[in-house]
Amino acid sequence: MSAEQLVTIPARKGKAAFVAKGQLVKIINTHGEQVVDTWAFRRDDMTEFMSNEHTRAHILKIIPKTGDALLTNHRRPILTLLEDTSGGVHDTLIAACDRYRYELLGCEGHHDNCTDNLAQGLADLGLTPPETPSPLNLFMNIPVAPDNTLSFEAPPAPVKGGYVVLRAEMDLVIAFSACPQDILPINGTACQPTDAHFSVYDA
Amino acid sequence: MSAEQLVTIPARKGKAAFVAKGQLVKIINTHGEQVVDTWAFRRDDMTEFMSNEHTRAHILKIIPKTGDALLTNHRRPILTLLEDTSGGVHDTLIAACDRYRYELLGCEGHHDNCTDNLAQGLADLGLTPPETPSPLNLFMNIPVAPDNTLSFEAPPAPVKGGYVVLRAEMDLVIAFSACPQDILPINGTACQPTDAHFSVYDA
Repeated sequence: MSAEQLVTIPARKGKAAFVAKGQLVKIINTHGEQVVDTWAFRRDDMTEFMSNEHTRAHILKIIPKTGDALLTNHRRPILTLLEDTSGGVHDTLIAACDRYRYELLGCEGHHDNCTDNLAQGLADLGLTPPETPSPLNLFMNIPVAPDNTLSFEAPPAPVKGGYVVLRAEMDLVIAFSACPQDILPINGTACQPTDAHFSVYDA
Repeated sequence: MSAEQLVTIPARKGKAAFVAKGQLVKIINTHGEQVVDTWAFRRDDMTEFMSNEHTRAHILKIIPKTGDALLTNHRRPILTLLEDTSGGVHDTLIAACDRYRYELLGCEGHHDNCTDNLAQGLADLGLTPPETPSPLNLFMNIPVAPDNTLSFEAPPAPVKGGYVVLRAEMDLVIAFSACPQDILPINGTACQPTDAHFSVYDA
């Protein structure tokens, strides 16, 4: 697959793909303000997966930067962050949204959510997540104040077409959700989720 | 059980207990510098458990403070932090140590670790953890710098006998590990894990 073959992550929905060791994955914030929840699972044993709490202990940062390895729950590199033209604002602290989240926000009935989107994206490949790991929330702005408080904020400096490039360090399954959050301004103050895109290609 | 009936969390090992809704749990840093990894699981469905990434999204803090509810992965309160005489330095960012961690730190052969201690503590009650959730690391000092970097530090102001009190918001199983980390100074610059204690009692 060439870098030009873009796959759509539809607004409010999930999408997953197989990636071979050594291949690159470019995730594009096409409209500049869309959070993309991202998960990676080892291909031949999905109980090993990218884990924020293990990665933070290794890179000694809350937010990964170019050159950083992202580790699994067995502390092995599964992805490396190679490039980042998005402004570098990402989140590793906040759980994927889920039906419980939207119930607490006052939604009645079904609301799209990243947890269901992970399951749906993997189901399209005939797979089932072993659990919902805490996602790498690309392009999500959760600033940490000096008093250790957090807030959910709109993107501080949206870059239309900004992207990150990840290199697969093992054969893996990658999954994305174009976060359907339309109550808090995490996807921009318009609270309007949009499509995002990705491509998988050889280095 | 009265507040006086102390249970030992042996240095480098794990211990678990059943707690009924409404009961209180006091966790005591007996020697003042011991990190106590803490987990809580819903009694009748252990796939629902205390989750840092869900709690942070709710309390909007990296470190819980007195009065804060600690949420499950279904975003329901499972524990409430009622009292804290320890100085209030705790961690929600770092994974439980595990055999992979000690292999990377250069250990040969077995090293006690909090992941195995969770399993052992629950096994003593005839239970198996559904996974190893990211623990609430009581008394653990992981400062976050303004540039979003982290560091593993010794306790900044150890309080011998300092404690926290948690109230159970549902019937649950609580599990602890007196962290066996003796390579980094997270349990004090002497790198000497010690016993800690807890009690479960009616309000």
